[in-house]
Amino acid sequence: MTISIAQRLLDLNITLPKAASPAAAYVMSVRSGHTLYVSGHIAKKAGQPWVGKLGKDMTTEQGREAARAVAIDLIATLSAACDGDLTRVKRIVKLVSLVNSTPDFIEHHLVTNGASELLVEVFGDAGKHARSAFGVAAIPLGACVEIEMVAELAGYVA
Amino acid sequence: MTISIAQRLLDLNITLPKAASPAAAYVMSVRSGHTLYVSGHIAKKAGQPWVGKLGKDMTTEQGREAARAVAIDLIATLSAACDGDLTRVKRIVKLVSLVNSTPDFIEHHLVTNGASELLVEVFGDAGKHARSAFGVAAIPLGACVEIEMVAELAGYVA
Amino acid sequence: MTISIAQRLLDLNITLPKAASPAAAYVMSVRSGHTLYVSGHIAKKAGQPWVGKLGKDMTTEQGREAARAVAIDLIATLSAACDGDLTRVKRIVKLVSLVNSTPDFIEHHLVTNGASELLVEVFGDAGKHARSAFGVAAIPLGACVEIEMVAELAGYVA
Repeated sequence: MTISIAQRLLDLNITLPKAASPAAAYVMSVRSGHTLYVSGHIAKKAGQPWVGKLGKDMTTEQGREAARAVAIDLIATLSAACDGDLTRVKRIVKLVSLVNSTPDFIEHHLVTNGASELLVEVFGDAGKHARSAFGVAAIPLGACVEIEMVAELAGYVA
Repeated sequence: MTISIAQRLLDLNITLPKAASPAAAYVMSVRSGHTLYVSGHIAKKAGQPWVGKLGKDMTTEQGREAARAVAIDLIATLSAACDGDLTRVKRIVKLVSLVNSTPDFIEHHLVTNGASELLVEVFGDAGKHARSAFGVAAIPLGACVEIEMVAELAGYVA
Repeated sequence: MTISIAQRLLDLNITLPKAASPAAAYVMSVRSGHTLYVSGHIAKKAGQPWVGKLGKDMTTEQGREAARAVAIDLIATLSAACDGDLTRVKRIVKLVSLVNSTPDFIEHHLVTNGASELLVEVFGDAGKHARSAFGVAAIPLGACVEIEMVAELAGYVA
């Protein structure tokens, strides 16, 4: 299964980045029992906040690409929390997807699919998750998308 | 207790609809241990998205009715996750209620009561939950309310 | 450790208020297993909703003070859930911080630091949490900040 997840990332031409560092007074993830709570990750492009607002200066397709980029960063954080062993991810449990949008934008679910579909491509059935997606007034640093995650990890719990 | 919950639904003249299907690349709920994470459900009216924005084209009372409608759909999803046996719901743990609102609307808590009160009517003390309610810029498909839920289920966990 | 947390609160000149009561049809916290889900708490000043919108009529520094005030109220609710024994808090797991902001405000993370930093000051390493922070269109009663929390409690679970 390690080979399989690694192979899928390779097939998708994805190299996991270094896990993100907190931009403020928090940590990127906390484990409680078998549950890993991953902090909201903002979309980045070339290492900088991916600035934009859906319904104003970005298309749904661009938002979808941004959401996919967030998912890659979330997987990098997951990997760091699992000491590099993504086979310890038993299930991607839930996403909350915050889309920086105007009050009349209505395709937050299509934007969020960029993240959801990648997680299923990488983790297969274990990547199928519950989620909420909606439009927020604004996101730190002007980013267009922010996504937080809950995952279930297998194995020993201290 | 099955009889009791079924009876309360009957007394409230509520027929549970068929559980909703995902509008995109996700699933309606995921169980992790004893915890069931239920995806955000948008308000629907006659099977279509219940479109509107509080503070603009809907009254608080109408929002409250929409929130109540969401709660019924959430119970349908809960029921599906419990193979139709709602007595397996040990506790409604938490709601997050997203109200599509203008920047100056301030009655999101009263809107959300439409869902909260129904859950207590149906589940009694087990329906008393923690919650957050706030106003979002927009909701997928223009819906007026979206609510996600965490519930604790009793019984065997694989 | 009781002495230590009590001492830190004393050093910070913080007297915990009486835990908040729900403003509507919900409860302030629900425990499920070892996990405590704490309802969204709105910022208050002198017992009244702390009204304001970041990017419009409040500075980031004022928002930060409001977030700190919310954290104190969250600790009061935590304390009530632990029968006054805060040593039972094994970990502050996650915050979701909702900042009432204009669409062009981008410092929600700095506002939220007011809460995050206090939790680390009070709980030390056990106070280091995952979090999401973002801007919402509006908050009940016009409050400037609302924060919800997940905490892990130690000890006996019924």
